[in-house]
Amino acid sequence: MMSILYPIAGIRLATGSAGIKKNGQQDLVIIELCEKSQVSAVFTQNAFCAAPVSVAKKHLATSSPRYLLINSGNANAGTGQQGITDALTCCKAVAELMHCDFQQVLPFSTGVIGQDLPVEKICDVLPEITSKLQDKGWQDAARGILTTDTKPKAYSKKIKIEGHEVTLTGIAKGSGMICPNMATLLAYITTDASIDPELQQQCLNSAVSHSFNNITVDGDTSTNDACLFISTGQSLLPTIDSETSDAYRLLAGAVQDLCEYLAKALVRDAEGATKFITINIKGGVSFAECEIVAYTIAHSPLVKTAFFASDPNWGRILAAIGRAGIENLDIQKINISLDDVCIVQNGHRAANYKEEAGQKVMDREEISINIDLGRGSEKARIWTCDLSYDYVRINAEYRT
Amino acid sequence: MMSILYPIAGIRLATGSAGIKKNGQQDLVIIELCEKSQVSAVFTQNAFCAAPVSVAKKHLATSSPRYLLINSGNANAGTGQQGITDALTCCKAVAELMHCDFQQVLPFSTGVIGQDLPVEKICDVLPEITSKLQDKGWQDAARGILTTDTKPKAYSKKIKIEGHEVTLTGIAKGSGMICPNMATLLAYITTDASIDPELQQQCLNSAVSHSFNNITVDGDTSTNDACLFISTGQSLLPTIDSETSDAYRLLAGAVQDLCEYLAKALVRDAEGATKFITINIKGGVSFAECEIVAYTIAHSPLVKTAFFASDPNWGRILAAIGRAGIENLDIQKINISLDDVCIVQNGHRAANYKEEAGQKVMDREEISINIDLGRGSEKARIWTCDLSYDYVRINAEYRT
Repeated sequence: MMSILYPIAGIRLATGSAGIKKNGQQDLVIIELCEKSQVSAVFTQNAFCAAPVSVAKKHLATSSPRYLLINSGNANAGTGQQGITDALTCCKAVAELMHCDFQQVLPFSTGVIGQDLPVEKICDVLPEITSKLQDKGWQDAARGILTTDTKPKAYSKKIKIEGHEVTLTGIAKGSGMICPNMATLLAYITTDASIDPELQQQCLNSAVSHSFNNITVDGDTSTNDACLFISTGQSLLPTIDSETSDAYRLLAGAVQDLCEYLAKALVRDAEGATKFITINIKGGVSFAECEIVAYTIAHSPLVKTAFFASDPNWGRILAAIGRAGIENLDIQKINISLDDVCIVQNGHRAANYKEEAGQKVMDREEISINIDLGRGSEKARIWTCDLSYDYVRINAEYRT
Repeated sequence: MMSILYPIAGIRLATGSAGIKKNGQQDLVIIELCEKSQVSAVFTQNAFCAAPVSVAKKHLATSSPRYLLINSGNANAGTGQQGITDALTCCKAVAELMHCDFQQVLPFSTGVIGQDLPVEKICDVLPEITSKLQDKGWQDAARGILTTDTKPKAYSKKIKIEGHEVTLTGIAKGSGMICPNMATLLAYITTDASIDPELQQQCLNSAVSHSFNNITVDGDTSTNDACLFISTGQSLLPTIDSETSDAYRLLAGAVQDLCEYLAKALVRDAEGATKFITINIKGGVSFAECEIVAYTIAHSPLVKTAFFASDPNWGRILAAIGRAGIENLDIQKINISLDDVCIVQNGHRAANYKEEAGQKVMDREEISINIDLGRGSEKARIWTCDLSYDYVRINAEYRT
């Protein structure tokens, strides 16, 4: 069900198996960036950040990246100094093979926390994998970075800017431990456009804040989150250097589209998820309080299990709003609808509400919870999912 | 497995079935307090508080309570003005039967949110139930207030103060939607001692803050939480009126014991729980940050499912600490042990840690997670449980 993934001029990829995951599954991806490619990034805000995150940040600050080395199956997190050494060893192995500086290699890891990275296994397969780099490697790469995900997440689009074709392709992974905080899981957004470095970072920040930062599966922010936006500058379009230009607006819009598509795909494929839930809050005094209400609902195990059961249990939604800690909240002013069915009016069951109507909405796979706090004009929107037996099974069995 | 419950002079109870729950289960409890009984209370801080909470607060502010009317199976929450009217109707029915003012009746409800209270059913059985009031009714009352609980929670003790025997008996209910916030689920602590009203409230506040306010099952604060501390003044002990007296210290200690016992019993019987987990945080700069770390761990679905799986997955604990939002937290200073097995030292796997040792602890039914943040001298302790298939099942099937 993956849509067509257009190659990006200046980027080659290769994917293979280093035996980190079981049964020979693909678990190692290399992405090669042409010279002068420009990389913007946001990383996890978790204070407990993984070794590859530390190394990638440092390398990014000192060099122009040429290679991304991504392994799945092992997060190289909670591994102390050994983890840093291991990440560096892998970078150096790539650098030696590809004749670049080791600081031009950015390492990324995702998987089990607290186990040493099997460096030897990785280095052993690097010669084979690097020999297979090709510009059509996106589909395999999208699969190679997965852990508990059941589906690859990728999206690609071509847009016209000033008469020139510009291509964007992005891949992402993530299924549990998802509640990005100014960062995301692993996501790589690429384009052949050329863009001023500051504008590129701004474009990424803005897109992330309206996509990956608006999703939550379980409230658990990962230690390894990273989202990169890479421009190769290989298209014929002149460098975009003005925030107010149409060119920037078009590119930023496309980046936003990609990020939103991938973020939603993460939630759709969340561990054990059976429902995709959009939570729209309006009528708040501030964006912050709208967001707090939205996340309190999204993290409520009682709301999540009710959605799993297709039970229009609006009392649990109201109880979650009530405990969100919003000062002077007047429950009597709150209205709630599920899709277009009004279930709560002025803080209690809507007079015309029929359980059958609520049930009909709840039987859908995609549901929006629309809440009006009735006290202001600010709003927020996030995406989440339900909590099922399978979430428990997947996370209880993860290491076995 | 309920321990002996001593009667409290001045208190009579009766329990019956009003048909609110299915299959004729007991769902209605009346507690009669002798004249001059003194009632202190704390209620839910959820902005969405149930009708009986509003009514009970109002009645408590204007009258000396003589009757508590408690129904299970229906929370009378999210029921708007009708809910208030219904609660009042029930209070008036009790008052008429027992010849007191309706404001001397405090209503309490627990169960499904958002359905109208079946007032007629309740009023119909009141004459029969009130005719059976007796001082030995504690065991039945402890059962009659339950909802998804699998076990009654009750505790009783006798202490000597200044040569006089003083008795305390308490009951509580609660199994899900448990994260009390300066309040608790339904809990009734009673004694035959006599105590200055302000001291009594202080005694309750202190006990609650070190017991019911230190537990969480799912982070969902109920709309109906209430904890009462009732003194009948029927013992021979003179009124306790000094905070610095031995008498106060002894009584407060006993109240604290009762509350702690009941709070732990709530967690032990939490929906689907298979493990009882104590989280001890020390080395924090403030109590507040210790508590935030403790609750972030306690609410992490990934930590909870790891405990369900008896998996010593310390990476998830460390990741939860890392995302708790503690400013300038240095992960390199954090130590973690499970019971007496050190699993994390200086932010990564302890050098001597063997998975078998961690596994041995995780196989226990009661486990403590001990965390040293290594940055101060404050501490906090809370109790919680794991997240199992059964939590999802119970809450997915609750209304069916």
